[in-house]
Amino acid sequence: MNQPFDLWFREVHRDGYAVGVRVTGYPYSGRSRYQKIDVVETALLGKVLLLDGIFMLTDKDEFIYHDMLIHIPLFTHPNPRSVLIIGGGDGGSAREVLRHPSVERVDMVELDEKVVEVCREHFPALTRALDDPRLTIHYADGIEFVKGKTAEYDAVIVDSTDPIGPALGLFSESFYADCHRALREDGVLSAQIGSPFFDAPDIRDILGNLGTSFPIARPYTASVPTYPGGFWAFGFGSKGPDPTAGPDPERVAALSGGFRYYNPQIHTASFVLPTYFEEALRS
Amino acid sequence: MNQPFDLWFREVHRDGYAVGVRVTGYPYSGRSRYQKIDVVETALLGKVLLLDGIFMLTDKDEFIYHDMLIHIPLFTHPNPRSVLIIGGGDGGSAREVLRHPSVERVDMVELDEKVVEVCREHFPALTRALDDPRLTIHYADGIEFVKGKTAEYDAVIVDSTDPIGPALGLFSESFYADCHRALREDGVLSAQIGSPFFDAPDIRDILGNLGTSFPIARPYTASVPTYPGGFWAFGFGSKGPDPTAGPDPERVAALSGGFRYYNPQIHTASFVLPTYFEEALRS
Repeated sequence: MNQPFDLWFREVHRDGYAVGVRVTGYPYSGRSRYQKIDVVETALLGKVLLLDGIFMLTDKDEFIYHDMLIHIPLFTHPNPRSVLIIGGGDGGSAREVLRHPSVERVDMVELDEKVVEVCREHFPALTRALDDPRLTIHYADGIEFVKGKTAEYDAVIVDSTDPIGPALGLFSESFYADCHRALREDGVLSAQIGSPFFDAPDIRDILGNLGTSFPIARPYTASVPTYPGGFWAFGFGSKGPDPTAGPDPERVAALSGGFRYYNPQIHTASFVLPTYFEEALRS
Repeated sequence: MNQPFDLWFREVHRDGYAVGVRVTGYPYSGRSRYQKIDVVETALLGKVLLLDGIFMLTDKDEFIYHDMLIHIPLFTHPNPRSVLIIGGGDGGSAREVLRHPSVERVDMVELDEKVVEVCREHFPALTRALDDPRLTIHYADGIEFVKGKTAEYDAVIVDSTDPIGPALGLFSESFYADCHRALREDGVLSAQIGSPFFDAPDIRDILGNLGTSFPIARPYTASVPTYPGGFWAFGFGSKGPDPTAGPDPERVAALSGGFRYYNPQIHTASFVLPTYFEEALRS
């Protein structure tokens, strides 16, 4: 028989669109104080981390999200030394931040210790970065953590879940104002902010919140197959450096290991938006 | 009760990834000599045309595919007057081609008359273009049709199903050689060729076939939410004009009605590829 064992997970977006993956194993299911945590093995995409039933990452495509969340802000900043990651318990953002030789210190503020524990077991290639001596993990609420900081960081990375439930405050005007204060001169911020095709009105509001504090507040995009619609938006905030100027090619070439999604041309092209998204952001 | 009526269609790609849509109606199901044809009504995306269970278009996102399949080649050519569309029975490609004021004549070669008949009933906004006096529909095999043509067209648009079954020949070296001969000086060609994330080895072979005849043979991409992975590749062939030079802004501005995906910046950015896709095409 050629019939494969037909077990599927699907994430439903906006009640009418779904991304599904064929599941070959279900190695972890649990619930923390904050959310449901699941790990499934899939036929095509390796292991997959799901929080409250939403795709966070897969072995096969996590490089896209992490490349674009991290390298756009870090190559836009002239010399990032001190970085704050809010969320990012899987370690993928830390891994990419710590590849930048200028980075001396990383604070990672993860609300849910259980996410780190589960990822240490199931995604060791990502969590390995969490043992780097330059990084400190704080198990705390990122919103509260950033309130106490002034001019400490060159970059803030908001690697959060979607703007529903506990993460909602991470997309607010007051949170972005606190991030702005926590940043030094030339400081930059990146955040995942939703699907241009399905969530454009929410993205417009989020960028409005970001723009209240940051003189440069712009969206950029990447194609992530396991996020709904396969097309994802990030918010970029800056106290000064212009992300569309592109990176210093020498700094890009100097990062050992290369990139699987990012490159200097993608950096600039990711700020070019389809007309429907531009129009929705202006409306 | 808040439980919606839970009927879903899904397209499965590479046996392990699926795009699903919630279905609210099923107005047409039939089978032609060539393929199964279905139209479903959906909660989020309007009516959807499916051929052999594969997403062809939806009311809500068809503009992306058609903008990018048509306007990239037609704005790259300096003065397209005569255009051949192979496939495209839904009328969407013809609609966009006929918006270009330079176009005097369009031949559309559709294998399956039943597709046109079904789309005339269910997608009248697309098929309306098929009544334009500049357009002639030929119900014939595109592969045979193009064999008899020499220096007749400025652009060939290959708006086909995926490279399996009856459409396989539309991705072959000999077909592209016939298209090259059918084109005049400065002639250009576009074709949909698959998912960069899931189908890169096939795309590499298709571009190799295209490059045997065309001195310029390059991929470009767009984000189409209902195609698997949400990220889609097109092949571009040219006898001379360089697509990355970008369009003439005056010609773009002169097209009445504007665009919902295409714009001059997207034109150029669509040729910038993520590193993993560039590497797969070189391997």
